[in-house]
Amino acid sequence: MQGKKPRTASSELEFVAGNGLLNRRALLGSSIALAGAAATGIGATSVAAEPVKDGPWSLAPGAVTPELQAPSRFEKDVVRALSNPTGVPRTQHARTPHQMLNGTITPNSLHFTILHTGIPDIDPAQHRLVIHGLVRQPLEFTLDKLARYPMVTRNHFVECGGNSGPLFNKEPVQGTLQQLHGLCSSAEWTGVLLSTLLEEAGVDPQAKWIITEGADSSALTRSTPLKKALDDAMIALYQNGERLMPGNGYPMRLLLPGWEGNMNTKFLRRIKLVDQPAMTYYEARNYSPLLPDGKAYKFYFINEVKSFISFPSFGYRLEEAGYYEISGIAFSGTGRIAKVMVSADGGKSWAEAALQAPVHPKAFTRFRMPWRWNGQPVVLQSRAWDEAGNAQPLRADFVAVRGETKESVPRNPFPNNHYNSLTSWGIDGKGEIKHVYA
Amino acid sequence: MQGKKPRTASSELEFVAGNGLLNRRALLGSSIALAGAAATGIGATSVAAEPVKDGPWSLAPGAVTPELQAPSRFEKDVVRALSNPTGVPRTQHARTPHQMLNGTITPNSLHFTILHTGIPDIDPAQHRLVIHGLVRQPLEFTLDKLARYPMVTRNHFVECGGNSGPLFNKEPVQGTLQQLHGLCSSAEWTGVLLSTLLEEAGVDPQAKWIITEGADSSALTRSTPLKKALDDAMIALYQNGERLMPGNGYPMRLLLPGWEGNMNTKFLRRIKLVDQPAMTYYEARNYSPLLPDGKAYKFYFINEVKSFISFPSFGYRLEEAGYYEISGIAFSGTGRIAKVMVSADGGKSWAEAALQAPVHPKAFTRFRMPWRWNGQPVVLQSRAWDEAGNAQPLRADFVAVRGETKESVPRNPFPNNHYNSLTSWGIDGKGEIKHVYA
Repeated sequence: MQGKKPRTASSELEFVAGNGLLNRRALLGSSIALAGAAATGIGATSVAAEPVKDGPWSLAPGAVTPELQAPSRFEKDVVRALSNPTGVPRTQHARTPHQMLNGTITPNSLHFTILHTGIPDIDPAQHRLVIHGLVRQPLEFTLDKLARYPMVTRNHFVECGGNSGPLFNKEPVQGTLQQLHGLCSSAEWTGVLLSTLLEEAGVDPQAKWIITEGADSSALTRSTPLKKALDDAMIALYQNGERLMPGNGYPMRLLLPGWEGNMNTKFLRRIKLVDQPAMTYYEARNYSPLLPDGKAYKFYFINEVKSFISFPSFGYRLEEAGYYEISGIAFSGTGRIAKVMVSADGGKSWAEAALQAPVHPKAFTRFRMPWRWNGQPVVLQSRAWDEAGNAQPLRADFVAVRGETKESVPRNPFPNNHYNSLTSWGIDGKGEIKHVYA
Repeated sequence: MQGKKPRTASSELEFVAGNGLLNRRALLGSSIALAGAAATGIGATSVAAEPVKDGPWSLAPGAVTPELQAPSRFEKDVVRALSNPTGVPRTQHARTPHQMLNGTITPNSLHFTILHTGIPDIDPAQHRLVIHGLVRQPLEFTLDKLARYPMVTRNHFVECGGNSGPLFNKEPVQGTLQQLHGLCSSAEWTGVLLSTLLEEAGVDPQAKWIITEGADSSALTRSTPLKKALDDAMIALYQNGERLMPGNGYPMRLLLPGWEGNMNTKFLRRIKLVDQPAMTYYEARNYSPLLPDGKAYKFYFINEVKSFISFPSFGYRLEEAGYYEISGIAFSGTGRIAKVMVSADGGKSWAEAALQAPVHPKAFTRFRMPWRWNGQPVVLQSRAWDEAGNAQPLRADFVAVRGETKESVPRNPFPNNHYNSLTSWGIDGKGEIKHVYA
């Protein structure tokens, strides 16, 4: 049967936008998908009848099972990128390698972290959480006591306000998704809703804000409106099924779904109810940068709707023309992703991507788009909408309001925050991929 | 305000079944929950106004951020239990510690594994998958080619047919959930539907089964009806976002959602389409045990509906009377969990637990039940139903059909397979927890 002509000609493919975007029904595993695959030739090789060959790993017993399993040595490059690998006394960033992941969950080993004074080695038996201030009854919780309260499990992303900072640069920074957008991750979190604890403490009607403080040596402190605290804020104890990672706030952290990562106080030891914000360093200076019009942000909390394509992306090379699946991540601090549009011609035409169900609110949503690359230059982009109708702004519109920097390698990599415009990948005729603005 | 009498008396709690089970609306974070908490006294301590104390970790910089983060040293006991830690030449089991986890995902480091000849060290660049036999066009796939096909992301459990084997014992084995039920786990898997590849290969109408073979040195081989292969079978490439763990089948495995773990061929290198099953060791002998009536199982593939309570469970001790959240896991190879009932009086009365949404088909579903323990002896049980109407059988009914063994420590720990009756925890007046039959 080998060598038989594929039964479906590529002319039967249903193109829905420029440069080879295919109808997303091609993802359903129907014959349409096969048309895409067979006709464009991913190139699964035709073989003889009994072709299986033993590798050396098939010829001798393998390794002993460990208590905690870890990735294959062939995945050694799938690690977080560190900004400060020797731990000199300044902030340490660890970025998630989105370009090498798939699905919607960030594994705990690869969840991004930012630590300002290193990772504290907290004894959970000694740690306490105190709720006080404008409450009827100040309360102190041990971890064991807290774990007796009703819990919830929810998928949510966390994103640093400075994530995607390189995209403020006037010239496109050539970097992987990890370098450009690695300061966001998504996990299944389990913990106690803060509203449950505040109700037991009894909120004084004068209380309008909470001030949360971590037990790390920087005692990182942020202010959050009480309304958010009573909405979906969680004291998270588990991350993807196990106790929090040390860098993610072990043994307990505040989770403010969809709000600036820095506010999601790790190593949480104190929640004080007050009538006004504390105006701490991170809210009065670091996350209040000047805008082009000379004004500054004040309490810009939400991580607005964003998306990026993880494959193909910078660092990959397309070896040949043919069928590929474009895939990426979308998320919004407002709620669920409603729609992701993909363009292969730099925004001239768009087609709607398939969204992986179930779509969780304020969580990574995987989108997929079938594509037949004809070997010619293309520019790939994604643009997301959330259920509230918010759209990712186009770059020109975004820059007009938010500004950009001239340095190709800026001294301050985060001249601004909360970038949420598009990411564009330019692919040339050789399959080389560059970060471009389009 | 300290020392004030709790505003809600325990007499206002809404009990819905014997021995303190509360209405599950108490989990909604409303004042009902607080009634449960405050009135029964979890015992969050009332404290003075500025009570936060520094631990030693608050007084000096912490540790340097690693490329791959790992759990705190205080979680050193949260590991898989190994049946063969030195790797002598026989099967190696690694069991998931469900009693220490929460949520619905099993972290990759803790996913159960069973290896018959150790973990092969497979070079993904050299690995090939071949589809041949009764097909129009035999095909060979590299990992890179396979990754270009349309992918799906789905939450599914995998369970060994021998999981829960100790519960066939005539006397209840005193063990943790890890020891009793540790051979099942649940993850978010991403990969290519097998139907997509079979459609490209072209299925001969004579084909009725597939035979799948692994590249490990035992070349583990199983037969699966073609109907399942064309339904929801997946060639999984990613597990909770990253490439498969070596012990879970790196670089690719067959996933047969809801079917006996051993059939989910790891290190998958060959799929042969045939007209009858191969009657391999694992289907003709190991998973075809004799039943009390002298007949044997033949092709008992599905993991039937099951549930167990993870907290409280063996290994914990309840320190005091008061409010607790009963929590556990339910799953069914048939589809979604429809209902979980919980009893605190050994099955005399039952109340419906809250299910964590979204409920994925053929995946772990977390259930929760608010409970006020009065300090008296109780017997906790859970019983699950799936969307097809299947219920976990009661123990007497199950044993009548499936038999039990007399040995308290049987030489063969798996005299039978596919145990899916109830698990019961007896708690005495001191809060000590034992595995009991009830």
